[in-house]
Amino acid sequence: MTDRKPKAPGLPASPERRRFLLTGAAGGLASAGALAGTAAAAGNPENLPPNVADWSRYLGSGVDAQPYGVPSEHEAHVIRRNVPWLTATPESSVNFTPLHELDGFVTPNGLCFERHHGGVAEIDPADHRLMIHGLVEKPLLFTVADIKRFPQENRFHFLECAANGGMEWRGAQLNGVQYTHGMVHCVQYTGVPLKLLLQEAGLKTSGTWILAEGADSAGMSRSIPIEKALDDCLVAYSMNGERLRPEQGYPLRLVVPGWEGNMWVKWLRRIEVGDAAWYHREETSKYTDLLPDGRAYKFTWTMEAKSVITSPCPEMPMTDTGAHVIKGLAWSGNGRIKRVDVSLDGGKNWRTARLHGPVLPKCLTRFTLDWAWDGKPVLLQSRCIDETGYVQPEIAALQKVRGVNSIYHNHAIQTWLVNESGEVENVRLG
Amino acid sequence: MTDRKPKAPGLPASPERRRFLLTGAAGGLASAGALAGTAAAAGNPENLPPNVADWSRYLGSGVDAQPYGVPSEHEAHVIRRNVPWLTATPESSVNFTPLHELDGFVTPNGLCFERHHGGVAEIDPADHRLMIHGLVEKPLLFTVADIKRFPQENRFHFLECAANGGMEWRGAQLNGVQYTHGMVHCVQYTGVPLKLLLQEAGLKTSGTWILAEGADSAGMSRSIPIEKALDDCLVAYSMNGERLRPEQGYPLRLVVPGWEGNMWVKWLRRIEVGDAAWYHREETSKYTDLLPDGRAYKFTWTMEAKSVITSPCPEMPMTDTGAHVIKGLAWSGNGRIKRVDVSLDGGKNWRTARLHGPVLPKCLTRFTLDWAWDGKPVLLQSRCIDETGYVQPEIAALQKVRGVNSIYHNHAIQTWLVNESGEVENVRLG
Repeated sequence: MTDRKPKAPGLPASPERRRFLLTGAAGGLASAGALAGTAAAAGNPENLPPNVADWSRYLGSGVDAQPYGVPSEHEAHVIRRNVPWLTATPESSVNFTPLHELDGFVTPNGLCFERHHGGVAEIDPADHRLMIHGLVEKPLLFTVADIKRFPQENRFHFLECAANGGMEWRGAQLNGVQYTHGMVHCVQYTGVPLKLLLQEAGLKTSGTWILAEGADSAGMSRSIPIEKALDDCLVAYSMNGERLRPEQGYPLRLVVPGWEGNMWVKWLRRIEVGDAAWYHREETSKYTDLLPDGRAYKFTWTMEAKSVITSPCPEMPMTDTGAHVIKGLAWSGNGRIKRVDVSLDGGKNWRTARLHGPVLPKCLTRFTLDWAWDGKPVLLQSRCIDETGYVQPEIAALQKVRGVNSIYHNHAIQTWLVNESGEVENVRLG
Repeated sequence: MTDRKPKAPGLPASPERRRFLLTGAAGGLASAGALAGTAAAAGNPENLPPNVADWSRYLGSGVDAQPYGVPSEHEAHVIRRNVPWLTATPESSVNFTPLHELDGFVTPNGLCFERHHGGVAEIDPADHRLMIHGLVEKPLLFTVADIKRFPQENRFHFLECAANGGMEWRGAQLNGVQYTHGMVHCVQYTGVPLKLLLQEAGLKTSGTWILAEGADSAGMSRSIPIEKALDDCLVAYSMNGERLRPEQGYPLRLVVPGWEGNMWVKWLRRIEVGDAAWYHREETSKYTDLLPDGRAYKFTWTMEAKSVITSPCPEMPMTDTGAHVIKGLAWSGNGRIKRVDVSLDGGKNWRTARLHGPVLPKCLTRFTLDWAWDGKPVLLQSRCIDETGYVQPEIAALQKVRGVNSIYHNHAIQTWLVNESGEVENVRLG
């Protein structure tokens, strides 16, 4: 963005230089200087006047510079991050949403976490087709243009990987909310209700399950009961207003609100209607919950009520005592978030946080608690309650039932220890 | 994104090649082939089988490929566009949001239109300060970090340039919704209520106006009555979850919900409290509405109820008769949209469109009307009504009062002519 503008002189922003800039400045800057002088006299270097001359003395780049805009170079650290040692290859792996850097409940498309089993399929939408066949009167093959001619829905939904927080079951205690909770994102989807496409094909009464299959090299496929398919599933083509991103299933992805992300089949190419589940790889060897006695729960699809404090957190330590905003996110696969409580003493006492609307079903909800830190150690926790009355549990309560063999569906309360230095650690209570 | 994957063979996607791929295909593809064979026999080339082999036979790129994601190369046409002949320089100019390509009501940050008067200020947030002074007990200088320690709000709001549609006053009839209506966008803002910052500085009762000033080379400044400043204005630092984009005022911008975009001062560096308006350049020589008798309305801040059909439109012609979704956007600076009507005959008859929630105050609202086109010419219009009962007017009614000298605040009903060939023109009725 600097191509249209001479580089600012490379002088250090020393008090001398700042004074020079101020005496050389006019109008609004003069009063800024006057005030800054006072502030500087107060001896707080943080209050030295802004070095505004560098950017107010030159024309910046014009409206032809960025047909599609990008973030400031000063935000280059706000990115999806992966963990090389976590998987054998980056094509069958995951990266994480930088939750600690985000506000509100919308995730920018460029920062939505990715989970692939065979890498990102590169699809030319002109060549892509979605087939619906099996127990239907009339098998159909849809182009992407065909799909867009059906009545559309526009809805905000969170998408969470079933393995989000999975490494915490055994107390791995990854030191960062991006890694403990970053396999979730939330965007506004636009698409066609799957119900309409099934009706178009003439769904037979004997059809009780569907198989959704992707066009990626993993041929990702999952079985979904017909009740869910006819309820709130979408065949989506847009996210946050623009077309799906390639890594999120461009040009078509299945949206399965409130259910585990693995079922939201990307690069959707085929939907087969059948009268039983298919028991494919991703619903037998994976995405089942192994219990202490060796048996496995299957078809545990719903992502239960969950919340986490995203600041402070290990990546966002306390910089000072006094006023601070505790920020976090809450969500439930069973509907709306009703209330979020925050504890400063590891769960002994709770304060009700402020929810930032609109509070939508099966969608992230931003909460905040305005707080003044006295510099003493704090055990930070958040606990959400959804509209069904379900209360987010402690990890010990979950493990009592589920053991530590599973890597899926950990929606336990997270604890952050803020120590005297302001640093924040991922800790396990009890 | 193709670096990890061999290029797909460059063979044409001819029927021969498609047949080859099908006979060579297995599993899910075989059934796709079977169905495709039937479809092909039906003689519709659109229904030939997908050339899936190219992307399902190879691993795609991994999760380490794009720390910050970008759109598909097949969406390279979805960009902000400027009009070189419109202004003398690109630094004091405008580009337009591609409304015809968007769904839902959230505008992706990279596609939010830009209007600059001195180019994009390049600011290092560590050096930036916001000063509040004038009629306050205690002048203050805030760092960006200081601002983030105040209680925050998260709200979706539209931002519309007062000149959006300005060239249509005299019937310029630009041939594209991106140019007639593209100076509007809508994102979720996160920031601090301006009221809290003014209270922190100790607002004096004699303070009846504020001046907001930017750190760009234009020194953009506007006067705002204290009632609005204390009502719903925000000093924002995030948009759609991430930090403001440089071209949208990074690191701080004033959010003035429902009022003209020029007042939403970017790169906000100074707020002065006074007891009268300042009558600066951008509220006297510009951003006033010149009437037929030569007098000018001043301080016409509110963006009134407005709507437009974004598809079909000149950039999105009809490709075929039959089922189609008419899509559009509606908004009002006075609150929520209550209803949107769509006419197919130039305003003689109206059908009520479907509003896609959540319907929020001073925010874009997506509407759709499901429709079957019979191939005959159509005069498409949308007309919105906001919660105050105000009805979007026809251009003739507006001009009767306002004449054609103004370039601001044109919120008239837009008419698109869909002719037999399916092409869409910007036309003027009466």
